[in-house]
Amino acid sequence: MKTYKKQDFPVSDIRRFLEPGPVVLVSSAWKGERNIMTMGWHMVMEFVPSLVGCLISSGNHSYELIRRSKECVINIPTVELAPTVAKIGNCSGASVDKFVKFKLTAVPAEQVRAPLIAECYANLECKLVDDRLRDKYNLFIFQVVKAHAAAAPKYPKTIHYRGDGMFMVAGGSLNLRRYFRPGML
Amino acid sequence: MKTYKKQDFPVSDIRRFLEPGPVVLVSSAWKGERNIMTMGWHMVMEFVPSLVGCLISSGNHSYELIRRSKECVINIPTVELAPTVAKIGNCSGASVDKFVKFKLTAVPAEQVRAPLIAECYANLECKLVDDRLRDKYNLFIFQVVKAHAAAAPKYPKTIHYRGDGMFMVAGGSLNLRRYFRPGML
Repeated sequence: MKTYKKQDFPVSDIRRFLEPGPVVLVSSAWKGERNIMTMGWHMVMEFVPSLVGCLISSGNHSYELIRRSKECVINIPTVELAPTVAKIGNCSGASVDKFVKFKLTAVPAEQVRAPLIAECYANLECKLVDDRLRDKYNLFIFQVVKAHAAAAPKYPKTIHYRGDGMFMVAGGSLNLRRYFRPGML
Repeated sequence: MKTYKKQDFPVSDIRRFLEPGPVVLVSSAWKGERNIMTMGWHMVMEFVPSLVGCLISSGNHSYELIRRSKECVINIPTVELAPTVAKIGNCSGASVDKFVKFKLTAVPAEQVRAPLIAECYANLECKLVDDRLRDKYNLFIFQVVKAHAAAAPKYPKTIHYRGDGMFMVAGGSLNLRRYFRPGML
């Protein structure tokens, strides 16, 4: 599987990757254990600081790793990884190391202990900043503290989950800048 | 502009529309005033009850209408409405009635006072259930109490915002059901 060559990317601009709504892979690590989960429920919450809300159900093996370490990496996969994304979402890290099982390359992050996934288009290193609604809704609010992204292609072919095993693949681009006020761009 | 003929849709299944991450139009009403805003930051939070988290910045004219009425409708536009979606996001309801200005059809909802937008593919009637993180993050957690959706096309050509005036249009479908465990579908 190909790996993406990445550069540093401004954390205040990560809406570019998350706002279109792709399914993502969340990597985590705690006390010698590591894991990857597939996540579809997330939202950008602020530019500065760069905040992202994530729904991580307590039924996931990753839940405890993230709750305890207070860190994770949000990795943005593209369509080549689609079968792997689906398979990762359909097995538990309790019994397997998903990096080994799915032949994914763990790269050390800079600011968190969770590993980056080299085969993903972008990697967002995250630290937990608010878990007040975690017990009630499984809501984790993270700050993106470091971002890495491929320079090409400019618009990655991300995959977007519709439920029922059906995904939408990112399609064409539409430039509507002419309708935007300068301050809104 | 064409209107979609809609049917009742199960509120527990609305992830189909929101999880792929489209930009949406939020309609609201309060004391004889109504408005529409463009919203890109939202996430599904639960199936039953059907919960959706939304970031509605206090700078939006809709903020007060939604805060006071504790209701809104999340409308899912398709690509034909893309210029309208961009224009709605670039003007304020303080000075215009956007239904009139953009020739959109307001249809009475069943369970909320905010109107449905007939030209959108689906309409989700929402009641505010949790605003504890509203003052800190502008986060509104809504329960979808009634949903309406077009039966065709099965997969709407939604638009997804990347920032900088650039949108991604929903592309092809990918069926990965074969990788799912029965309980995960």
